[in-house]
Amino acid sequence: MEGLNGNQEEKSAAVQSGRSVLQRVRALLGDQLADVEAQLLQLSDLQPDELRNAVGMIVGSGGKRIRPIMVLLVTGMLGTAERSRAINLASAVEMLQTATLVHDDLIDGSLVRRGAQTLNAVWTPAATVLTGDYLFAYASNLASRVDSVRVMSIFSDTLGVIVGGELRQMFTDWGLRSTRDDYFRRIYAKTASLYVLASTTAGVISGADDAQFRALLDYGRDFGIAFQIVDDVLDFTGEQATVGKPVGSDLRRGMITLPTIIYAESHADDARLECALRGKCTPHQYDELIADIRNSDAIERSLVEARTITESAKRALELFPASEWRALLCDLADYNVRREL
Amino acid sequence: MEGLNGNQEEKSAAVQSGRSVLQRVRALLGDQLADVEAQLLQLSDLQPDELRNAVGMIVGSGGKRIRPIMVLLVTGMLGTAERSRAINLASAVEMLQTATLVHDDLIDGSLVRRGAQTLNAVWTPAATVLTGDYLFAYASNLASRVDSVRVMSIFSDTLGVIVGGELRQMFTDWGLRSTRDDYFRRIYAKTASLYVLASTTAGVISGADDAQFRALLDYGRDFGIAFQIVDDVLDFTGEQATVGKPVGSDLRRGMITLPTIIYAESHADDARLECALRGKCTPHQYDELIADIRNSDAIERSLVEARTITESAKRALELFPASEWRALLCDLADYNVRREL
Repeated sequence: MEGLNGNQEEKSAAVQSGRSVLQRVRALLGDQLADVEAQLLQLSDLQPDELRNAVGMIVGSGGKRIRPIMVLLVTGMLGTAERSRAINLASAVEMLQTATLVHDDLIDGSLVRRGAQTLNAVWTPAATVLTGDYLFAYASNLASRVDSVRVMSIFSDTLGVIVGGELRQMFTDWGLRSTRDDYFRRIYAKTASLYVLASTTAGVISGADDAQFRALLDYGRDFGIAFQIVDDVLDFTGEQATVGKPVGSDLRRGMITLPTIIYAESHADDARLECALRGKCTPHQYDELIADIRNSDAIERSLVEARTITESAKRALELFPASEWRALLCDLADYNVRREL
Repeated sequence: MEGLNGNQEEKSAAVQSGRSVLQRVRALLGDQLADVEAQLLQLSDLQPDELRNAVGMIVGSGGKRIRPIMVLLVTGMLGTAERSRAINLASAVEMLQTATLVHDDLIDGSLVRRGAQTLNAVWTPAATVLTGDYLFAYASNLASRVDSVRVMSIFSDTLGVIVGGELRQMFTDWGLRSTRDDYFRRIYAKTASLYVLASTTAGVISGADDAQFRALLDYGRDFGIAFQIVDDVLDFTGEQATVGKPVGSDLRRGMITLPTIIYAESHADDARLECALRGKCTPHQYDELIADIRNSDAIERSLVEARTITESAKRALELFPASEWRALLCDLADYNVRREL
């Protein structure tokens, strides 16, 4: 009971501190985030109304807007980018992310995201494919308004990395051969690449030099890697009611993530691992294996890795002079690994 | 019999003249088209090999490469663009087209294109969606190598027009309310926009002034509109063996094109039209209606419109000094409306 209470207090502190980071971000960014939101919803070309409203819902029901926040904090820290370019860039990054989510939901067959029905749940696959394509075009349009060929080039490379990673994943039978390296390469493509897009292009429009660009790249990459590790841990530790999907859903789909990799390193003889990755376990075997991973030290060891990588993200920013912007970029990284779903 | 022979001779002359236009284009463009082909197939990042080979097949099995040819003839005519930019641009336009085709085949459920199996026929929808996305990223990457923000902006606008048009189509029950205006708006979005992309961006990298840009836009638009009208006529007049789909396949899917619109104008009382557009005809009724349209003057009147629009495309080029490049752009437009499948 004491442990549970202690855990709850810790959780509550984390949630509090998360709220306070985002509050401070909002205070510092002023109306910039509202301007991003308005940019995202300029869908006037989209007809008929039914379609525009549905797309507006998807775009508007976004999460915490961490990627646009990263763009705006970096441009704030560097202090030289024009405000309108920063807003367009922040909007473009978020729109690219939204577009990839629409196709991902179709690919995964997901019916719910962020508590709302996905397009995939209410429309045909054809309409969902086209809506994702429309949002790609929109993201690309917003990016072109930033008026930088280098930004456009990083944008298209990022889309190539994300989609190339998904394709590689789809065409590869990872199974137990999936190593730590495979995992990190995979989550770079899937998640970290979009944070790298946010941090580096914010640098580009601020005239960052090579060393600054490299530091921003390191920050974005480590932030994104830590983010995905925490997501993968929450897939094991979250409660179904909160996460909205069964505990251990990744493993149940044959997807190996860091907790499973770490667990497998010290339980190479656990025969359930191979059957799970081949999708051949009984539901009961999955439940047992997931409970065992959840109760093993693989969870804490995964979180230690996420925290170490977060420290590295923060260290990358030491190149820049201390400022409230820089402090918030560090706090955002900390919040990221302490967050709850 | 005489009529038939005359028709065959005319067809043969058209095929001959088409061959000769493309031969002259190839002679004039030299190794530029081979360089475009090589650019299109630089898929080295794509893993695993199985995937790269499949995508290589799609990209490599392209049609006549009319859009890249248009880019290269326009840059040749204007004479100031760097060769490498023209090659990158021509490749980017063709890659964007290829990407939209991959998603279109998924949306239509098409299993064959240009005589080869579509991705859709051999892969899951998920792999097909992602492959299309990958090709969008690739198109965008090629476009960014052109090193012009204005080109990127026209690219993203074009993708928005194409996809927005398809979505509007999907969410609208056109039925008999479909007018000539609707039809022309639809084929602009679906087909002509890509030719406008080719002609105008070729102008941009050649430093075209406003009047030249406008003339190139008119040429690309009229070329594309005429192209689609001819395609829609061929859907009625082509033989199943040549076209690879049943005669009148558009109408069978409830899609109204110019021959049907013209036929309906003079046969407003034909009750089969409404049942066909509602997808409620019997196969026999479809066969009869399609035969009636095919034997009516709607076919010839559609072709007259295509030829008139082609003349307008050629007239737009009168702004530019006479040259072999300009002559070939005109011949290409003529070939376009005389082509056979």
